[in-house]
Amino acid sequence: MAGGEFALIAQLRSRLGTAGKGVRLGIGDDAAWLDPAGRQLVATMDTLVAGRHFFSDVRPYDLAWKALAVNLSDLAAMGAEARWCLLGLALPSRAAGYGAWLEDFMGGWRALAERHDVTLAGGDTVATDGPLTLSVTALGLVDRSVMRRDAARPGDRIWVTGSLGDAAAALDLALMERGREGHRVLCSAIQREALEARRLRPTPRLELGEAAASCGVRCALDCSDGFLADLGHILEASGVRAHVALDALPLSPELADLARTDSERLRRWPLTGGDDYELILCAPPSLSAALRQAAAARGLRLTAVGRILSADSGSSAAVILTWRDQVVPLPAVWGHVHAL
Amino acid sequence: MAGGEFALIAQLRSRLGTAGKGVRLGIGDDAAWLDPAGRQLVATMDTLVAGRHFFSDVRPYDLAWKALAVNLSDLAAMGAEARWCLLGLALPSRAAGYGAWLEDFMGGWRALAERHDVTLAGGDTVATDGPLTLSVTALGLVDRSVMRRDAARPGDRIWVTGSLGDAAAALDLALMERGREGHRVLCSAIQREALEARRLRPTPRLELGEAAASCGVRCALDCSDGFLADLGHILEASGVRAHVALDALPLSPELADLARTDSERLRRWPLTGGDDYELILCAPPSLSAALRQAAAARGLRLTAVGRILSADSGSSAAVILTWRDQVVPLPAVWGHVHAL
Repeated sequence: MAGGEFALIAQLRSRLGTAGKGVRLGIGDDAAWLDPAGRQLVATMDTLVAGRHFFSDVRPYDLAWKALAVNLSDLAAMGAEARWCLLGLALPSRAAGYGAWLEDFMGGWRALAERHDVTLAGGDTVATDGPLTLSVTALGLVDRSVMRRDAARPGDRIWVTGSLGDAAAALDLALMERGREGHRVLCSAIQREALEARRLRPTPRLELGEAAASCGVRCALDCSDGFLADLGHILEASGVRAHVALDALPLSPELADLARTDSERLRRWPLTGGDDYELILCAPPSLSAALRQAAAARGLRLTAVGRILSADSGSSAAVILTWRDQVVPLPAVWGHVHAL
Repeated sequence: MAGGEFALIAQLRSRLGTAGKGVRLGIGDDAAWLDPAGRQLVATMDTLVAGRHFFSDVRPYDLAWKALAVNLSDLAAMGAEARWCLLGLALPSRAAGYGAWLEDFMGGWRALAERHDVTLAGGDTVATDGPLTLSVTALGLVDRSVMRRDAARPGDRIWVTGSLGDAAAALDLALMERGREGHRVLCSAIQREALEARRLRPTPRLELGEAAASCGVRCALDCSDGFLADLGHILEASGVRAHVALDALPLSPELADLARTDSERLRRWPLTGGDDYELILCAPPSLSAALRQAAAARGLRLTAVGRILSADSGSSAAVILTWRDQVVPLPAVWGHVHAL
């Protein structure tokens, strides 16, 4: 991008790369110099491509929020404190240039980054002949152990933060609006707005992730591919099975209203819809009180939705799904449609 | 990429994500868990786009090498020990799939990664409708201070590792071969091969970077945009000027042969050609002996090519260029053609 690249970097540096916690040298040199202060490091990277992971006409503010959020959510699932990010931007040429675009993008980035005291410490900006592509690396810190997907044990309660399925319902609405495949959904403008906010600006559960790890929880995953798909990752990695109570899954008021009388939606949205970015936690019952308290202290909904079973107990299905204590069939597909 | 993504990740994990130094949990969870062992962190990210930063028909082996090398070179310029990487791959659909492609890609990655004991600790693999795009994040460790671009001081010697201009000459040859713009160059197949190896598989100067920082060198940059352009970054950040002896610039035997009698090439290739990935170091004369010894111990050429001047000394040009001690004009353009 030659001159254009340096101008964009200067803009990013002045707006986002201000001195942050543990940043000894930020944007502007060959690399960032960061101080983990004797702690352990947690590192993740997600790549998002226009037309694949987000609609090409997404507002830059929302795009920045989501690109950062999905990475912070990975840190949350490990129980880490988010600290620094690197941003790789591959930008197609654009008649209007990227001045106003970047201004709005940085607004969204800052809104979420400031909430969690995360500093943009570096990255790269290049031109592309293809769709807008972002790679974000997020770096966080932990003191002791991380939460991992292979640590679920028989007897563990399965917990879910927030609510499930909102992003999937909003995606159906967005696809319908664009005349694309999808399911017909009728709802009010207010409901639509609430669901759309959940799809566009997911909330990484960093505080609860950290608190859960401190409580001694050893197993977590963030729910990005759909609840069943992500729970499936835990079960496979841990070599266990699970019972999930469909009637216990936490729904937002909007989703409950739209899905209450529609069993197809009730199964599809919360069970298989992607991009919720809630945490799935597995923890022994002895930790239940501490977990509940940690969530309550943060004003966050936390719901017990099932239990981990040993691999050799009864049925051969990885998940036993029940409704009012009666076993019901699992959806054929467990995930995942990425919420564009 | 759904199923394909998981297959690729499994392949990357089994071939590249084996246990490495300080890797407590590698590929396969939400994020990697890494142990900096009480040291400071250095982090960098570079994004490469097919058709912009490399020819679309590049051998995957060479692409992997280069994508890793350019990032390790940034760590080298900070004086860091390279440790971990994250790899973001956006892959266009491909009739032949990515099985054999990835096999070759991983071969190139491993060849360089093993040389420096660098572990692939995570990343992301997605599909794209655009050109193949890679983002690599490299993480390294330092004990004390890093080398930075704003630390050049009047009186410092300017040093360059290896040789300059090979990648630029090889790019001219490659563009000529493809019938694209560029300069006509005649050389032997053996010369061509030597230059091409430098363009395709640059050598990050990690050992010397670390040794220089240990010697007390405080200012360095890697030479990726072209020697004059990168020296210019140092001068601007440090608020100083420089004298550079054109006749002192280190040339490979191949480049010397091709450029010896052609003053245009002699100025263009080593002065303004990009993608050399050598280090530019600025250090007080008191460190010269230690630096020379550090380079000799590693069998690496290290050449004094000039001196840092104070901002207010004489001429207004940022760089005074001489040939046999006579001032000669600077090139109009200082950089940088990315070596495709």
